[in-house]
Amino acid sequence: MSNTPDTDNAVRAYVDGHGAAFLAELSEWLRIPSVSADPARTDDVRRSAEWLKDHLAATGFPVTEIWDTPGAPAVFAEWPSGDPDALTVLVYGHHDVQPAAREDGWRTDPFEPVIEDGRLHARGAADDKGQVLFHTLGIRAHLAVTGRGAPAVNLKLLIEGEEESGSPHFPELIRSYADRLVCDTVIVSDTGMWSEDTPTVCTGMRGLVDCQIDLYGPGQDIHSGSFGGAVPNPATEAARLAAALHDADRKVTIPGFYDGVVELTDRERELFAELPFDEASWLRTAHSRATLGEAGYSTLERIWARPTAEVNGIGGGYQGPGGKTIVPSAAQLKLSFRLVAGQDVEKVQSSVRDWVAALLPAGIRHEITYWGATRPCLTPLDHPALQSVVRAMERAFDQKIRFTREGGSGPAADLQDVLGAPVLFLGISVPSDGWHAPNEKVELGLLMKGAETAAHLWADLAENGRE
Amino acid sequence: MSNTPDTDNAVRAYVDGHGAAFLAELSEWLRIPSVSADPARTDDVRRSAEWLKDHLAATGFPVTEIWDTPGAPAVFAEWPSGDPDALTVLVYGHHDVQPAAREDGWRTDPFEPVIEDGRLHARGAADDKGQVLFHTLGIRAHLAVTGRGAPAVNLKLLIEGEEESGSPHFPELIRSYADRLVCDTVIVSDTGMWSEDTPTVCTGMRGLVDCQIDLYGPGQDIHSGSFGGAVPNPATEAARLAAALHDADRKVTIPGFYDGVVELTDRERELFAELPFDEASWLRTAHSRATLGEAGYSTLERIWARPTAEVNGIGGGYQGPGGKTIVPSAAQLKLSFRLVAGQDVEKVQSSVRDWVAALLPAGIRHEITYWGATRPCLTPLDHPALQSVVRAMERAFDQKIRFTREGGSGPAADLQDVLGAPVLFLGISVPSDGWHAPNEKVELGLLMKGAETAAHLWADLAENGRE
Repeated sequence: MSNTPDTDNAVRAYVDGHGAAFLAELSEWLRIPSVSADPARTDDVRRSAEWLKDHLAATGFPVTEIWDTPGAPAVFAEWPSGDPDALTVLVYGHHDVQPAAREDGWRTDPFEPVIEDGRLHARGAADDKGQVLFHTLGIRAHLAVTGRGAPAVNLKLLIEGEEESGSPHFPELIRSYADRLVCDTVIVSDTGMWSEDTPTVCTGMRGLVDCQIDLYGPGQDIHSGSFGGAVPNPATEAARLAAALHDADRKVTIPGFYDGVVELTDRERELFAELPFDEASWLRTAHSRATLGEAGYSTLERIWARPTAEVNGIGGGYQGPGGKTIVPSAAQLKLSFRLVAGQDVEKVQSSVRDWVAALLPAGIRHEITYWGATRPCLTPLDHPALQSVVRAMERAFDQKIRFTREGGSGPAADLQDVLGAPVLFLGISVPSDGWHAPNEKVELGLLMKGAETAAHLWADLAENGRE
Repeated sequence: MSNTPDTDNAVRAYVDGHGAAFLAELSEWLRIPSVSADPARTDDVRRSAEWLKDHLAATGFPVTEIWDTPGAPAVFAEWPSGDPDALTVLVYGHHDVQPAAREDGWRTDPFEPVIEDGRLHARGAADDKGQVLFHTLGIRAHLAVTGRGAPAVNLKLLIEGEEESGSPHFPELIRSYADRLVCDTVIVSDTGMWSEDTPTVCTGMRGLVDCQIDLYGPGQDIHSGSFGGAVPNPATEAARLAAALHDADRKVTIPGFYDGVVELTDRERELFAELPFDEASWLRTAHSRATLGEAGYSTLERIWARPTAEVNGIGGGYQGPGGKTIVPSAAQLKLSFRLVAGQDVEKVQSSVRDWVAALLPAGIRHEITYWGATRPCLTPLDHPALQSVVRAMERAFDQKIRFTREGGSGPAADLQDVLGAPVLFLGISVPSDGWHAPNEKVELGLLMKGAETAAHLWADLAENGRE
């Protein structure tokens, strides 16, 4: 199959012709409230996994399995190309969704999909059921247009069931099934694009280290008149730690924190700068009144390509109404660090540990608890598989494809680590889709472009995707 | 009446001889649970005021009144000396008590006084009913031993009913009754001494300014991956404020904060240094592991004679279990400042206001709310009325009397301000009495010494108390 306008039209015709049936299937899946964070929805999450397994079998995958974890089940499917030399690609997504209830501000039942003005409204429409399912329409189009009986690449799908709960069992799952998951390239379909008008491909995600620091001072709250000013105050010390995170240029001060950071290239900075970034509208999305961050970097560079330290929560002493003149006995700090390529999770954790211990005065006892950590991932702009994704998108969108990164963190990096394969991102969601918010939606036009991209991708990767 | 051993013995004999009856009366008063903070105890607080009014009338006060406030009632009593040139003294105390319940850790019913091993256990035994009532035994002894029909000074008592609730209506009360309260000297009996073995007189209390600073950033919590590092974080800014309160020497950094501070004299520092201060045992009382405070000052100097800034509470963002990777939308800081003589409450408030506004970055909106403020007060060591208190105590205790100050703050300063009279402190409570804690007690021996001191004081003040 060659990259001709005829092929492109044939794919588009197939996708359009099967769009209605596809949306009916997606709606059926969206009606299953697979909220992994809600113990009352355990059965629904399993039902969602089973629905997907059946759907993948009906699509033609010869291997479809449910993989149990100590938490919610994942779905695995495999469709060998038949060509012994074919590239192997693993598609990642998730079938669980964020909680949603009418009283949160939904205009319609979050689990009763509604199509209106070219948009499908439902919890999971964009995050992530819509973006998982466009792949099955894409595969059908790929086979129909090429006349093949199997995909041009060995295709594997791993659709987990706990992403919205922080993927607590995902690293263990992929380690135990590593031999089944072996692949040359990972395609993650759980991200978005710049906007409907500016299709983009994401080239990396930041990593994440987050922790809680508990500080203990007096054995009980004590009188600030009788003792204040003469003993260490854990709330003050928590504040001093949080304040010491950044210098006046808002650079992170923790010794060793920036070690190994892969700096932005001039080419990447140029590409970021080409994006139609409008500060006022970005601030609206951020619900914020001003930008503030590391000196010497633009807003997009700060959120996509620079490591950061953030205070997620701080608490200590009296927080009720009015005043209470105490020296509190304890305080707590919740910090998260976003990491970029080149930073090492364990190294950052130990740098934070050393930094905390060095800053606290005698008389303050502390404990640090690290929650799960996620490694950063980044695919170089010239990687051949990334070029395949860009070409596949260009054919679907009839537009130049630009590059973004993702400031958030995801289990994608675990796949990169365990499987040793580069991770690419193919997502068609847009910022207005309202992930984790009321009235989540997906743009139907973009969903179809996603299916077209998927239809083009496998042949291109088979031909050009090897490093 | 002269200061002779005979007089001293006569006073002691009178106090000892009437001790049992006095304790029976005190116990009756302590059985009334006059908890001003508990709306369910409103009637009990009034019953306590009425009990005291009756008791003062029975003691011989020709004028006894209940003064109503929008909250709990105060009790006023007056006993003119009869001598037109006599000094006028106002005794201040309070008849309300802190909350107390068996389940808080009391070994006995907090409102059923128990005498055991020379101690009287009950809520209010030391704070403040015991210390109010020793005055009536003292007056009786003064009259009995001198053979007078009225005290040597014009004696006024003002015993308020809301001290444990922060004295919300006290300043207004004393302003409206200022003409009735006119006096040359105020004696506050609501403090303590260094210890049972080291009787002391307190020469001043610190003032207090406390406030809440609310900081607002994003309109809602936002994703720390998508936006973190590029917008201001109110929790970080709250921490930066709290951390900026002190420099590396733990001096307060707010411009103008130390303006006017009356520095310790060498003599005062020597006197403080003479006290048998044991850091280890002080740290136990403070429930703390180490001392920390303004460089260049001892622990006692820090808590008694230096102004301080304390973080009473801080809160912002996620404080539940585990992590949550957000940039929080709001944070809150509760600060209190202890002031010493020479500092001006309004000036400190406006300095704090300016300092906060100067430190916050664009994009963070803030509000400051000040709670009630209390002025500092300090009596010079050479003040004649203070010398009278010292002499009266020396005769009661047969010991050298040393000097302390009080790190806390109280309504005493309002009396000083409104009435323009110096405030002296006569208290016999000791740190182990457990103010505001379970199993509050008073040492019976010290209670009797308090009565003896009061018995000696009026004649000495009449003779020597004028400036």
